[in-house]
Amino acid sequence: MANKLEQYRTEIEEINDQILELLSRRGHLAQKIGEEKRKKSTMIYDPQREKEMLNTLIDKNQGPFNDNVIKQLFKEIFKASTDLQKSDNEKHLYVSRKLKPEDTIVRFDNGGIIGEGHKSFVFGPCSVESYEQVEAVAKDLHAKGEKFIRGGAFKPRTSPYDFQGLGEEGLKILKQVKDQYDLNVVSEIVHPNHFELADPYLDVFQIGARNMQNFELLKEAGCTNKPILLKRGLSATIEEFVYAAEYIASQGNQNIILCERGIRTYEKATRNTLDISAVPILKQGTHLPVMVDVTHSTGRKDIMLPAAKAALAIGADGVMAEVHPEPAVALSDSGQQMDLNEFDAFYNDIKPLAELYNQKKLK
Amino acid sequence: MANKLEQYRTEIEEINDQILELLSRRGHLAQKIGEEKRKKSTMIYDPQREKEMLNTLIDKNQGPFNDNVIKQLFKEIFKASTDLQKSDNEKHLYVSRKLKPEDTIVRFDNGGIIGEGHKSFVFGPCSVESYEQVEAVAKDLHAKGEKFIRGGAFKPRTSPYDFQGLGEEGLKILKQVKDQYDLNVVSEIVHPNHFELADPYLDVFQIGARNMQNFELLKEAGCTNKPILLKRGLSATIEEFVYAAEYIASQGNQNIILCERGIRTYEKATRNTLDISAVPILKQGTHLPVMVDVTHSTGRKDIMLPAAKAALAIGADGVMAEVHPEPAVALSDSGQQMDLNEFDAFYNDIKPLAELYNQKKLK
Amino acid sequence: MANKLEQYRTEIEEINDQILELLSRRGHLAQKIGEEKRKKSTMIYDPQREKEMLNTLIDKNQGPFNDNVIKQLFKEIFKASTDLQKSDNEKHLYVSRKLKPEDTIVRFDNGGIIGEGHKSFVFGPCSVESYEQVEAVAKDLHAKGEKFIRGGAFKPRTSPYDFQGLGEEGLKILKQVKDQYDLNVVSEIVHPNHFELADPYLDVFQIGARNMQNFELLKEAGCTNKPILLKRGLSATIEEFVYAAEYIASQGNQNIILCERGIRTYEKATRNTLDISAVPILKQGTHLPVMVDVTHSTGRKDIMLPAAKAALAIGADGVMAEVHPEPAVALSDSGQQMDLNEFDAFYNDIKPLAELYNQKKLK
Amino acid sequence: MANKLEQYRTEIEEINDQILELLSRRGHLAQKIGEEKRKKSTMIYDPQREKEMLNTLIDKNQGPFNDNVIKQLFKEIFKASTDLQKSDNEKHLYVSRKLKPEDTIVRFDNGGIIGEGHKSFVFGPCSVESYEQVEAVAKDLHAKGEKFIRGGAFKPRTSPYDFQGLGEEGLKILKQVKDQYDLNVVSEIVHPNHFELADPYLDVFQIGARNMQNFELLKEAGCTNKPILLKRGLSATIEEFVYAAEYIASQGNQNIILCERGIRTYEKATRNTLDISAVPILKQGTHLPVMVDVTHSTGRKDIMLPAAKAALAIGADGVMAEVHPEPAVALSDSGQQMDLNEFDAFYNDIKPLAELYNQKKLK
Repeated sequence: MANKLEQYRTEIEEINDQILELLSRRGHLAQKIGEEKRKKSTMIYDPQREKEMLNTLIDKNQGPFNDNVIKQLFKEIFKASTDLQKSDNEKHLYVSRKLKPEDTIVRFDNGGIIGEGHKSFVFGPCSVESYEQVEAVAKDLHAKGEKFIRGGAFKPRTSPYDFQGLGEEGLKILKQVKDQYDLNVVSEIVHPNHFELADPYLDVFQIGARNMQNFELLKEAGCTNKPILLKRGLSATIEEFVYAAEYIASQGNQNIILCERGIRTYEKATRNTLDISAVPILKQGTHLPVMVDVTHSTGRKDIMLPAAKAALAIGADGVMAEVHPEPAVALSDSGQQMDLNEFDAFYNDIKPLAELYNQKKLK
Repeated sequence: MANKLEQYRTEIEEINDQILELLSRRGHLAQKIGEEKRKKSTMIYDPQREKEMLNTLIDKNQGPFNDNVIKQLFKEIFKASTDLQKSDNEKHLYVSRKLKPEDTIVRFDNGGIIGEGHKSFVFGPCSVESYEQVEAVAKDLHAKGEKFIRGGAFKPRTSPYDFQGLGEEGLKILKQVKDQYDLNVVSEIVHPNHFELADPYLDVFQIGARNMQNFELLKEAGCTNKPILLKRGLSATIEEFVYAAEYIASQGNQNIILCERGIRTYEKATRNTLDISAVPILKQGTHLPVMVDVTHSTGRKDIMLPAAKAALAIGADGVMAEVHPEPAVALSDSGQQMDLNEFDAFYNDIKPLAELYNQKKLK
Repeated sequence: MANKLEQYRTEIEEINDQILELLSRRGHLAQKIGEEKRKKSTMIYDPQREKEMLNTLIDKNQGPFNDNVIKQLFKEIFKASTDLQKSDNEKHLYVSRKLKPEDTIVRFDNGGIIGEGHKSFVFGPCSVESYEQVEAVAKDLHAKGEKFIRGGAFKPRTSPYDFQGLGEEGLKILKQVKDQYDLNVVSEIVHPNHFELADPYLDVFQIGARNMQNFELLKEAGCTNKPILLKRGLSATIEEFVYAAEYIASQGNQNIILCERGIRTYEKATRNTLDISAVPILKQGTHLPVMVDVTHSTGRKDIMLPAAKAALAIGADGVMAEVHPEPAVALSDSGQQMDLNEFDAFYNDIKPLAELYNQKKLK
Repeated sequence: MANKLEQYRTEIEEINDQILELLSRRGHLAQKIGEEKRKKSTMIYDPQREKEMLNTLIDKNQGPFNDNVIKQLFKEIFKASTDLQKSDNEKHLYVSRKLKPEDTIVRFDNGGIIGEGHKSFVFGPCSVESYEQVEAVAKDLHAKGEKFIRGGAFKPRTSPYDFQGLGEEGLKILKQVKDQYDLNVVSEIVHPNHFELADPYLDVFQIGARNMQNFELLKEAGCTNKPILLKRGLSATIEEFVYAAEYIASQGNQNIILCERGIRTYEKATRNTLDISAVPILKQGTHLPVMVDVTHSTGRKDIMLPAAKAALAIGADGVMAEVHPEPAVALSDSGQQMDLNEFDAFYNDIKPLAELYNQKKLK
């Protein structure tokens, strides 16, 4: 019997080799077809033709595999061939590290940097509420030598009756503070028309979690020439997040900063679940800087510092957190913003750690 | 000892009564304050004042409850008072059944109805691909006596390189077919500017799952006078869904049809998880019609019929499903659209059931 | 150029045919190998050999597909072959409808039936607390002509300090009531040794959600000869649920009733999310009866009736719900159990509907 | 009008004070009642009495708060009082850091330590497959100076037809290797009777994710005197995880090591979602050591190193990972176990980092 088994196996190996050879020939043909199609600008994926080929094969199928298995196997083969045809195109997936192996580094006139080799911080209040409020934080950040401030002028809120932000007035406050303290201003944009409106005031346009798949907004962002900070959607997969960035990049703007901010899960001990593993996956798959928002992901001031440490350790290019001079009276997110004392404690722990990474003493 | 216990309990009951009386007096005062504020159009929730009151109480707290417990208890009391003040306002939550107990019924010129007392259907292809394709479905629907057709002209797709829809050309095809077969056309809008563009072509503007919290789009939808079909977000809570509808209603348009289309969970046996319980919760909490999209929620043709039966049984006002003359070559969702034969089988089972509900033989 | 394209395509079609033929020959060889292995009781999946074959193929691979693609394609081919070998075994997957197309029907001496063609109900309190409490419900069920009662004697509770059930004393109460009112008793078992202990008292052993993958308990359940009511795990996939049933069936007991009871998701408007789509998927894939627990899935008395209607409509063989004579003082789940008046209202609506299905007036 | 508002507010503040005083008196009474009950060993929570008190209050309620609001407020007050009564008991929640502020440190005869101030590692194959296989890993670990090895002898597998582990034979292999290389052996137990069986062979009993709420197993674990490594359930909340540990501790065994191993979410880029935030929450709430399993949480060898770095940074007491001499032929988890070369690379990066923490150069 062993002999029989052995014999069957030898035959199977011969068949493997023949299939391999046929696949190779098929691959070369697919490449040639791809080339022809590129010349004609025809779409590579041609479902009608695949359907006909599958039907032909099913008609000829004599078993022992049932038709579904044959369909499945050939779909895999077709897909491999299509992928081969796409490979050139894929090399043009703008955000992909395969296309551009070196890290994208976002640089600012005031010396601010977001990108590999440097751990950056973006702090500030959830909402812009008044000049005094933003100024208090900005002064503190300036004193600490920080280069960025965040604050929301357009606030996407669950209820239409919640505070919706000060709008353009808020942008003006941000600009005033920016000029006063030499900070780059990051603020959220929610309408395709806002890019133009906000352009004189902001250094970085943020696209928030709820708008991660607002493709019209993404395309508009891709037409600006300012950096975009793109937050992961509340329940976006990593793949969807990357494609959302590609919507921006495909319009010509590759100055994109990705930001993991927690995903929606069943666990309610934290506001969201910080998906820390997303950071190395995004760093491997794209050339874009990746930050971690420890405020929205955890929603808990008592674990923001350890979460920020984890973010730096896993390779994030920086950390975002909310700071408010008087969180108890904040018009949004009052429970999770650090006051200036809490922020001092947080900063005094995280900044020296960031320095160790910046100086390559840790990696 | 029992005596002691009994005595303590009597004392506690007396205290209960006194607290009750104080709460009652406090409630009446809160109402009067609310009235004053309404006169002044002041915001009812005043975090600064609550903070001061809490601080005062904490200062005076002698135990045995610790400060956090006292804070918690008084926050509950404050909240009850604020809610009392809000109650008039709440009665103005436009989508709430408390404000408007009777069902909203959306009526169309061709006799189509969406709303209580009538189980309606919206069928059609995922994307508009060609006149022939839409016409084939429309003809079939017309022959069946149906009043609606759906089809996407603007397709929000995960990748920017996937088929994005035919745009205005697609709208024109829909309009042509509409006129030919006297159908109401439902199609998705993705940009605030599209409402104007699409107005001449469509009967119902659909806002898709990805845009459920695209508040700028919602507000624009609220400024139109056509019915809006609002799909639940991929991982939106029911509460968020209701508030999204309120964004539309608050701008003046209450012709809103809610659509449960499955939520994102860990389970991969279905494309999404049909959250069927959302239907009665939405029907109880709002006066809006609620439909169930059995295509996107299940993603499986083999369970669409039972899912549709469950939708009708649980009180949905109708069912949406995708139908395509040749699903295998569809430019989107090719695996889950019914072909015309499958649709016939589906329809022949679900339509008589719907009739039983429409004729009040089932409830 | 069209000529070139056409020519390449013709060549590709020829290659397709040759691959198909080779696959067919390979399939037949795999079947023969499977037969030899069955004779020897060798495991069919042989990762070492697959690894060697893959290595050989990679060594020979000349492109244009990269090694990973070739690995992937051949893994698919290997898998198809292994599946072919497994097919006989698979036909022995005891719970599969492929093995046994006709429905399993669980029958009881008192005329109770759970299974296709009959919509059954299992009602009763969450926990057994006292004879009086269970008797009150049993009397009501008996008066209604029902054949089943549920009640927990062993309660798996999140905290070790929560009420853990009355244990054997609870079983005795159930038995007493059973004898008095001619009801079948369903109660949960949590320790492999409990089957023997509980055998004299119970008619159906329930395995709860937390123990769905307590494989030692499942195996022991498979060694009894009483029906098992198996609840879906809190976050079990449908596939895992089916395999859990197979653990029981593989030990010889196929009297298994599956019960969908909601899954854990981000949505908190309901206690769990009723995954109603699981019902038709389980009915298609297995021959086992499927019930829906509307209490644990929704956790809301205000939507239990519509949820029960949906369960019947989608094809469930019955409905479970919790009923307690005095829910406010229940030792567990006090908020979601119906009192006897609420139960009357529920029953008076759902029972006539069940009868319509039982009499084949609805399907 | 401002006067009126001011006057109302003053009255409200007076009422606040009176309520505070009443609450304080009520609290003292509740404590006295609690004392009496402790003397009598009566359960503190008395739902029947609460119900009566609520009914009395509802009867007396004259508005303006509706009955539900009054019920809710008094339930909060009752709960605060019950909590006060419980406070002594709570101080006896064995795993709570409130009870025992200092860290639990698990020490072993061979010098191995798991607990604060020391970052430990537990590596080894998923399943015990043969002496040679385990020995190969053990030799490597010994050479590296490691003190622990893991390997499964009882394997809870989704399908009953998957490899179920070598059972006692596997335990013997582990013991043999343990003696040879002076390693502590960690292995999973799945049946309450296994503790006795496995006792001669193992140093740490592991309770796996699927059994985290197998309370009978937990109680049995609490009756042994060996350390228990308790893994978080697939979709357990942090609260449920802590209570599962308490089941063990309440039986007398507090040598418990918690292990975060990823939770089930919608995201499929990783096998599970590493809930890194759970680590500091568990460290704050309990005095138990907390490890992170980077294999099961990520399921991806390409991000295990960064995930391990994040685990150390966020405060985990150690890291678990799977290592197999020949992963491609492993009988379980073949895709995610590191081979010895990959393990070398991983170890050479993570070990020096652990040393920095151990030497307090990093915190």
